Amino acid sequence: MVPRYARPDMTALWEPEAKYRIWFEIEAHATEKLGELGVVPPSAAKALWDWWATDPKIDVEAIDAIEAVTKHDVIAFLTWVAENVGDEARFMHQGMTSSDVLDTTLAVQLARSADILLADLDGLLEAIKRRAEEHKYTPTIGRSHGIHAEPVTFGLKLAQAYAEFDRCRTRLIAARAEIATCAISGAVGTFANIDPQVEEHVADKLGLTVEPVSTQVIPRDRHAMFFSTLAVIAGSIERLAVEVRHLQRTEVLEAEEYFSPGQKGSSAMPHKRNPILTENLTGQARMIRAYALPALENVALWHERDISHSSVERFIGPDACITLDFALARLTGVVDKLLVYPERMQANMDRMGGLIHSQRVLLALTQNGVSREDAYRLVQRNAMKVWESDGQLTLLDLLKRDEEVTAALGAQQLEEKFDLEYHFKHVDTIFARVFG
Amino acid sequence: MVPRYARPDMTALWEPEAKYRIWFEIEAHATEKLGELGVVPPSAAKALWDWWATDPKIDVEAIDAIEAVTKHDVIAFLTWVAENVGDEARFMHQGMTSSDVLDTTLAVQLARSADILLADLDGLLEAIKRRAEEHKYTPTIGRSHGIHAEPVTFGLKLAQAYAEFDRCRTRLIAARAEIATCAISGAVGTFANIDPQVEEHVADKLGLTVEPVSTQVIPRDRHAMFFSTLAVIAGSIERLAVEVRHLQRTEVLEAEEYFSPGQKGSSAMPHKRNPILTENLTGQARMIRAYALPALENVALWHERDISHSSVERFIGPDACITLDFALARLTGVVDKLLVYPERMQANMDRMGGLIHSQRVLLALTQNGVSREDAYRLVQRNAMKVWESDGQLTLLDLLKRDEEVTAALGAQQLEEKFDLEYHFKHVDTIFARVFG
Amino acid sequence: MVPRYARPDMTALWEPEAKYRIWFEIEAHATEKLGELGVVPPSAAKALWDWWATDPKIDVEAIDAIEAVTKHDVIAFLTWVAENVGDEARFMHQGMTSSDVLDTTLAVQLARSADILLADLDGLLEAIKRRAEEHKYTPTIGRSHGIHAEPVTFGLKLAQAYAEFDRCRTRLIAARAEIATCAISGAVGTFANIDPQVEEHVADKLGLTVEPVSTQVIPRDRHAMFFSTLAVIAGSIERLAVEVRHLQRTEVLEAEEYFSPGQKGSSAMPHKRNPILTENLTGQARMIRAYALPALENVALWHERDISHSSVERFIGPDACITLDFALARLTGVVDKLLVYPERMQANMDRMGGLIHSQRVLLALTQNGVSREDAYRLVQRNAMKVWESDGQLTLLDLLKRDEEVTAALGAQQLEEKFDLEYHFKHVDTIFARVFG
Amino acid sequence: MVPRYARPDMTALWEPEAKYRIWFEIEAHATEKLGELGVVPPSAAKALWDWWATDPKIDVEAIDAIEAVTKHDVIAFLTWVAENVGDEARFMHQGMTSSDVLDTTLAVQLARSADILLADLDGLLEAIKRRAEEHKYTPTIGRSHGIHAEPVTFGLKLAQAYAEFDRCRTRLIAARAEIATCAISGAVGTFANIDPQVEEHVADKLGLTVEPVSTQVIPRDRHAMFFSTLAVIAGSIERLAVEVRHLQRTEVLEAEEYFSPGQKGSSAMPHKRNPILTENLTGQARMIRAYALPALENVALWHERDISHSSVERFIGPDACITLDFALARLTGVVDKLLVYPERMQANMDRMGGLIHSQRVLLALTQNGVSREDAYRLVQRNAMKVWESDGQLTLLDLLKRDEEVTAALGAQQLEEKFDLEYHFKHVDTIFARVFG
Repeated sequence: MVPRYARPDMTALWEPEAKYRIWFEIEAHATEKLGELGVVPPSAAKALWDWWATDPKIDVEAIDAIEAVTKHDVIAFLTWVAENVGDEARFMHQGMTSSDVLDTTLAVQLARSADILLADLDGLLEAIKRRAEEHKYTPTIGRSHGIHAEPVTFGLKLAQAYAEFDRCRTRLIAARAEIATCAISGAVGTFANIDPQVEEHVADKLGLTVEPVSTQVIPRDRHAMFFSTLAVIAGSIERLAVEVRHLQRTEVLEAEEYFSPGQKGSSAMPHKRNPILTENLTGQARMIRAYALPALENVALWHERDISHSSVERFIGPDACITLDFALARLTGVVDKLLVYPERMQANMDRMGGLIHSQRVLLALTQNGVSREDAYRLVQRNAMKVWESDGQLTLLDLLKRDEEVTAALGAQQLEEKFDLEYHFKHVDTIFARVFG
Repeated sequence: MVPRYARPDMTALWEPEAKYRIWFEIEAHATEKLGELGVVPPSAAKALWDWWATDPKIDVEAIDAIEAVTKHDVIAFLTWVAENVGDEARFMHQGMTSSDVLDTTLAVQLARSADILLADLDGLLEAIKRRAEEHKYTPTIGRSHGIHAEPVTFGLKLAQAYAEFDRCRTRLIAARAEIATCAISGAVGTFANIDPQVEEHVADKLGLTVEPVSTQVIPRDRHAMFFSTLAVIAGSIERLAVEVRHLQRTEVLEAEEYFSPGQKGSSAMPHKRNPILTENLTGQARMIRAYALPALENVALWHERDISHSSVERFIGPDACITLDFALARLTGVVDKLLVYPERMQANMDRMGGLIHSQRVLLALTQNGVSREDAYRLVQRNAMKVWESDGQLTLLDLLKRDEEVTAALGAQQLEEKFDLEYHFKHVDTIFARVFG
Repeated sequence: MVPRYARPDMTALWEPEAKYRIWFEIEAHATEKLGELGVVPPSAAKALWDWWATDPKIDVEAIDAIEAVTKHDVIAFLTWVAENVGDEARFMHQGMTSSDVLDTTLAVQLARSADILLADLDGLLEAIKRRAEEHKYTPTIGRSHGIHAEPVTFGLKLAQAYAEFDRCRTRLIAARAEIATCAISGAVGTFANIDPQVEEHVADKLGLTVEPVSTQVIPRDRHAMFFSTLAVIAGSIERLAVEVRHLQRTEVLEAEEYFSPGQKGSSAMPHKRNPILTENLTGQARMIRAYALPALENVALWHERDISHSSVERFIGPDACITLDFALARLTGVVDKLLVYPERMQANMDRMGGLIHSQRVLLALTQNGVSREDAYRLVQRNAMKVWESDGQLTLLDLLKRDEEVTAALGAQQLEEKFDLEYHFKHVDTIFARVFG
Repeated sequence: MVPRYARPDMTALWEPEAKYRIWFEIEAHATEKLGELGVVPPSAAKALWDWWATDPKIDVEAIDAIEAVTKHDVIAFLTWVAENVGDEARFMHQGMTSSDVLDTTLAVQLARSADILLADLDGLLEAIKRRAEEHKYTPTIGRSHGIHAEPVTFGLKLAQAYAEFDRCRTRLIAARAEIATCAISGAVGTFANIDPQVEEHVADKLGLTVEPVSTQVIPRDRHAMFFSTLAVIAGSIERLAVEVRHLQRTEVLEAEEYFSPGQKGSSAMPHKRNPILTENLTGQARMIRAYALPALENVALWHERDISHSSVERFIGPDACITLDFALARLTGVVDKLLVYPERMQANMDRMGGLIHSQRVLLALTQNGVSREDAYRLVQRNAMKVWESDGQLTLLDLLKRDEEVTAALGAQQLEEKFDLEYHFKHVDTIFARVFG
């Protein structure tokens, strides 16, 4: 976790205090059910919850000090709780293992992280939608291979981004369900010393589903799927970030990250206004992608469990969630305040001397009986001259002067093919598909 | 693709002929709709389908020869079709781009691959289920950290694998839906020269859904999700493969890959019987995981499209699908024919002098009023002696002779704690959760 | 391996025949030394080499047919050789294991692949150098963040690429040394049944060094390092490819991949000229990077060896080497024939109204006593006006009219700061550093 | 960075104070040379160094506070220095860019990290060597595929590890050289406003080499190589960690991580002694490997630079170095204190009824005229009986009773083949190769 790429709510979820709060809740809920089942006195859970109702401060340092002696984090925590609650606390954790607490806690942390990320996505989607509506009919050139192709609208670009992040949202909901499971099944997961009803109770209280079969640990294919999903979302962030970076290039400059008054783009060159936010997002996307790898390698634990996954998760749990939260929020800000330059879009589109209409001429020629091969040759030979003139010649002029062309297509017919609006007749259809 | 790790049905899907067949279908279905819409003569589609009904051989070499001249694969194919169908063929591909054909074809190939993989998973699940039922109550030691923990049954191990691959199945269905989309939207995806109804028609005929907004290409977050899902499945394959490899170790030997009469384990050492299938699967899992990475990097294409994804997909499309198909089938064979040795399982479990019952004694002591700390100390000090005796001493004997222990727990009570059956009382519950 | 991304020499290295030839050489050299040591009759090696001198055809199908029965590739090969050579052949392979043959063969294949790749790099370096000299003083704008920064020369860009690929060359030489080792050490590597002198002899004959300690297999950290080095080279390929893609963008168009007469950029849009070679290279770079991952996971084999590495290497051995060979050759072609447009470079540089000289004005102001903060503010406020005028205003004009500026810096002093040549005074120094 | 996997010296290198100290040194050394060159007054450097000689506290909070206003880290630092040093400080940073400072600082941090890692490797090598000498002739079974193969010594296992980490050491020295370069070349790297001699001077003072051609930034192929090298080292750590985990398995138990008095292996099961350190190392290795990926993706920066690498390096710079430092130290401790059980090694080796000598019998039979195929069949049929008897039968007994065998090999000859010492005759040779 890099502090400058972290926001407080998500970070708080991964701090020791939050972890210990979940530990307590799991233990207390379990003790409650154990009391109902007559395994421990019902007074035990009451004592725990009574103390909890006083909103006690989690004394992380004290717990750490105990761990320094016991070398076991869960035992240290239980000891600290016992010191506070008193004798009744000894009934906690009956028949449970540390993994029951640790894995269910990770489930809660990841599920809550997913909730924050879903809210982030909602915010991003809203911003994209607003800007898409705003620019629904703002003409801009569509580019394939970085080369002008045919006209689109800036709203269409954003509609694509909306649809993509909407898919990410659906994926994240599925990924959340993957990891939101509760395991209270004891050593090697047989429930030998704990009734399955305890697991059901705790799951219910924490908003989790029951892990059908755990082996002391919750199986790590779930986490692999979760972090892989975050990696895919990171890919989509990178895509939109790269789009902005391209649009802000000096020669393109069709859109620009907001540049605040007083901001300095470079210590050396006072003229600079750089797309640093989206470059920064590009790097963060690389990190979030990288975190999926060790999650995938964590799946093949040995037998009922080994603990190799644990060190990995201490890194990627917070690092992937915190960084993605930050990245989504940053991207939302970029979209929200993006400076869009429709005039420059038009100017750029006009630079190519009408080349972007070449397909329509090609189609018209073939419809008028020219073979596809000949039509291609006719359009291409004129297009290449325009291309090489660097915007001095226009395709329409040259075509009008090409007798082979005009034999098939009259001047007026040719002119009709250079109509920008023609390209936008299905924008509504697409918007309806995307925004409903 | 490595031929020895490839099966014919899946491989056939990725061969040129299969690809060209899908190309034809897309073009013919599109022409059909264009005919209905009056854009081209209805006779065009008829000519195409009439020819197709003759079940013509796809002449890959002839198409290649044309491509060597045109340097464009789709144009080469269209030319070849035209040579066979005649003049009516010139109406094909009206208003479409190559990407419409290529991306929709990839969707069909991946969807059909997913269907094969789903069938593979069904076969694997069936094999696991059968063996799980067979060994539902075969006792075996559960191991955490590679160290004996507490008893489980071999059926429980397999129930876990079943639940895991069942999740993989659910994920693959979702991943299939991700990539089974059809885009016939023309250059930069605006439908400028092709009616959206054509896309709907082709999608419908090919069993795909319509891509809501494409940009000449189908967005690659879909493919990233697909290949990431295959990577997660590979992780689960590796997990079960590693389990078998562990169980077959000389010192463990609780299960073994089937070893056929006449097979040679080693050219030099005639005594060897090695888990080579599961080792092989471990390596294949590494490859399938690796293929997710470039798929993730493919997401951030430039603007409406660049073609950097294409070379990647020429590798990972076939390689990931073919290898995973092979791996699932191989794993199914391993499970199906796995030699299981219940006696050895029992013998291994007995090696530790009853240490695997230490928790129950610990719990009983605390229930009888000994503090948790003291109880732990009492059990551990006797356990460590057993541990160091290497199976010569038994925990029960030592505990009976430990006065601090017997003060809290009588001999009969102690003996009760060493009951194997105790651990299996919830096997039914877990099987019901997993197999319904 | 994708045939269209493969060149014949490298591909041949990885075909069965080449592999069997190396197998034979290893066996024959070993038999030779065993003869010298008196372990087998000297006539055995003679018989082998005599047959070899007849340049026999390697009958891959026959060997495959034997393997179908023996299920062991090395045994199948030895049997086939024996069928051809006769009785003396039974002395081959004495005290050796299959791994001795397989791992040493892989070493030879990788070393020969490295030789081809080194030659590829030499070709690339030569092409870059030639173009760098050609454009040593061709002014072009340096861009940071995609935004115009200050002038460089096109030669400098290429000098950077040269230095980078020269480092790649050095790395590849080191990587080649890593994997060019020979192991003929028998089962578990103890030389129990084969004298270490055999290993030394074979190593010497094949141009390899002796593996100091093998464990039946050559340790896989060597291969991890080799494939990781290829991954780094792929990164450098991507960098140069991305540079060309940027330069070819419609709005930039300072350089362009060679576009042959008759070539078609798009089936739909006859005006297109796309940087498809460098986009293609970008995708290939992703693949080559991905292959490093399973190589890294291969390191931790179990005990003296497991065979999980083998399936991985059947993929990545040929796939990484063949693809990198192709990519280096393709990149060399791109550089060699790159169309460079100095006039467009100049025109682009001029678009920004002299903003690219802002730093020099800033420095001059501070040298004349203006505080850095004030100087920055003065230059920035004028620069932003130029920026927003989209090339209509020039920085020099505005500065001359800014009284706070002219109080510190006279008109002539200002003008001097807009001298392009000023930026190139150390081009010679840098070229000397890079090209010697 | 996870605090529990971090050691103080390495961590300190990556803390803000250490970074600012290097920043100061770079600026002061550069100012010194600028003074010599007459670009700034010589008094400037003197003022800086005089202040530095007072060992001033780096006030990170104050610098942060300035950055909160300027939004630029280097400017904030320069401002803070100026506040302390006074007017002379304004001559700092003349003609330099932030990247000159940042990239050179990263070089220093990585080089110093490499020095710590090299010392770590030295410590590890020493520990391995000591234990290797100790167990040079401790017999233990060599295992291929997890199955008993033939005898080795425990010292040989460690010799292999030594050779592997010695290679890692060589690689790390090369990787250190890769990144230990200094760039003080100004905007876009042309030295337009700063003399190359400044760079040479700073490089010399900081123990770096000069970057031959930078483009404002030091090229990131260097860092990709560095982090890839760390990834390879992580692979070797995982290999040795996995070896220990295997050896500590209950059924094997030939070696064990040190288990301190009072330690608790499990909160629930008092009998447990788990290889948690090496499991933990396995997870850390996964992380260090993962960090190589974004470093590889960082290579292809746009044009002269973009800043996408920066966020990546804020993560992986400290995280990879700190975690690897911790992992190497932890592994050294594991090796140093490893409990080794030679008696158990012997007992395990004896379990297989002499099967591990099957190759020698095979070879003797062939040497006595039996064909290889027949010899294999004879040994295998007896071996399989031993295998299935689970240690009740011995190979020697069965062979003696097999008339086809005894026809070729007498009882005494057979007995000679079961000599353990036979396998160790080249241990000296191998040790000499590895330890010199």
